[in-house]
Amino acid sequence: MCQLLGMNCNTPTDVRFSFSGFSQRAGNTGDHTDGWGIAFFEGKGLRQFVDREQASTSPIAQLIRNYAIKSENVIAHIRKATQGQVALENCHPFVRELWGFNWVFAHNGNLVDFAPKLHSHFYPVGTTDSELAFCWIMQELAKSHAGMPTLHELSITLQDLARRISPHGTFNFLLSNGQALWAHATTDLCFIERRHPFATAHLSDEDVSLDFSTCTTPDDRVAVIVTAPLTKNETWTPFEKGRIHLFEHGCLVALQ
Amino acid sequence: MCQLLGMNCNTPTDVRFSFSGFSQRAGNTGDHTDGWGIAFFEGKGLRQFVDREQASTSPIAQLIRNYAIKSENVIAHIRKATQGQVALENCHPFVRELWGFNWVFAHNGNLVDFAPKLHSHFYPVGTTDSELAFCWIMQELAKSHAGMPTLHELSITLQDLARRISPHGTFNFLLSNGQALWAHATTDLCFIERRHPFATAHLSDEDVSLDFSTCTTPDDRVAVIVTAPLTKNETWTPFEKGRIHLFEHGCLVALQ
Repeated sequence: MCQLLGMNCNTPTDVRFSFSGFSQRAGNTGDHTDGWGIAFFEGKGLRQFVDREQASTSPIAQLIRNYAIKSENVIAHIRKATQGQVALENCHPFVRELWGFNWVFAHNGNLVDFAPKLHSHFYPVGTTDSELAFCWIMQELAKSHAGMPTLHELSITLQDLARRISPHGTFNFLLSNGQALWAHATTDLCFIERRHPFATAHLSDEDVSLDFSTCTTPDDRVAVIVTAPLTKNETWTPFEKGRIHLFEHGCLVALQ
Repeated sequence: MCQLLGMNCNTPTDVRFSFSGFSQRAGNTGDHTDGWGIAFFEGKGLRQFVDREQASTSPIAQLIRNYAIKSENVIAHIRKATQGQVALENCHPFVRELWGFNWVFAHNGNLVDFAPKLHSHFYPVGTTDSELAFCWIMQELAKSHAGMPTLHELSITLQDLARRISPHGTFNFLLSNGQALWAHATTDLCFIERRHPFATAHLSDEDVSLDFSTCTTPDDRVAVIVTAPLTKNETWTPFEKGRIHLFEHGCLVALQ
């Protein structure tokens, strides 16, 4: 299995603290060593880094831990291969363009007997069940809406699509188009919303602490979503299983 | 205007020597400082790095100059903005998926009164004439071929599409799907094919030399394509204007 990390904020925020702890699970505190990747939105623009090396030692992961890239929406993934060989084209997150927006997707889980009909313009480059699921989701979104709908409408469509994929196995995923971040869990995924007054957090995977009050303003809101809690002195909330969750401006948005 | 750099090889090759000289033009020996990008194919997989900073000083460009990423097809770009603001989404190279392959495109030039009808599944994320031209090329390739055709057939279609865009202005571009690299020039673009016996090359933009015989085998073939010659002791061949050139396995392929 793999692990997921997401961040959604109301102001461009540096993910280095979270990524530093997360990437320890790719070789040090965990065995998710079959590649990794991270994507940062800057408005509509996107930086995507993928690597076949393990994130705990990769020079590119080292750059990400040291270089403050500020973003409102981040999705990262460390891989422990289930389907698809260890290769660059099988590293998450995956990216496709739809309606003039970049869409970024990462999956934790394993889908069995999942062979949807692809008949449009989205085809996998690699050989994972995850990229296949993403291509099918993009195809079905494109069929369901003539152009970019509201975030709420998108959430309803995504809920329907996730319900159709989930019977095939574990389907924890993160998705973003730069405007918002969607999260879905059938097993392990939890989140935290940080806001004023900010406190000090201690990572679980390495002996590092950060006092968020030194690098935030009282208006900042940051939601972090991860497979297993990243810090040992905060309360992380497990997701309700089988439901799409929408994060916008650093907050979980209530869906009807 | 911008500048282009491409590399096509018959074995995964390190582009650091060429990129080191090329990136000096983004702030030191040239004023192409409005962002940059580079894409490396590893088989079907792709690493793409884009940055709004200038390539001569960007920490990510520094990583690329120091970290040996070996690739058979590389496309890089340094930007001096003509159309579209300085933003991440306007940095080349651009990427789209078609027929289960990543396609990478970078453009040097300026297209005027170019407003093609986009009616399929490829839309620009940013606001450059370049990404618009790329989306139109992807759309027309998808319409012209039901699935991945031969490289020769693709070259014929690309020749037709380039002829239809070129009346709108300067249209120098590089395109790759990981199998081959296509180059087209209406003004400045030149290339070199390096093969056994390899010699020492001296960069034009910084005082750096490399003896290629120390890092190659006699079977290696490497073609480098660039807006203006990168070395001062080698003979670079200007492209015939208005014609698509196909590079495969490090060699220019004759097209009928």
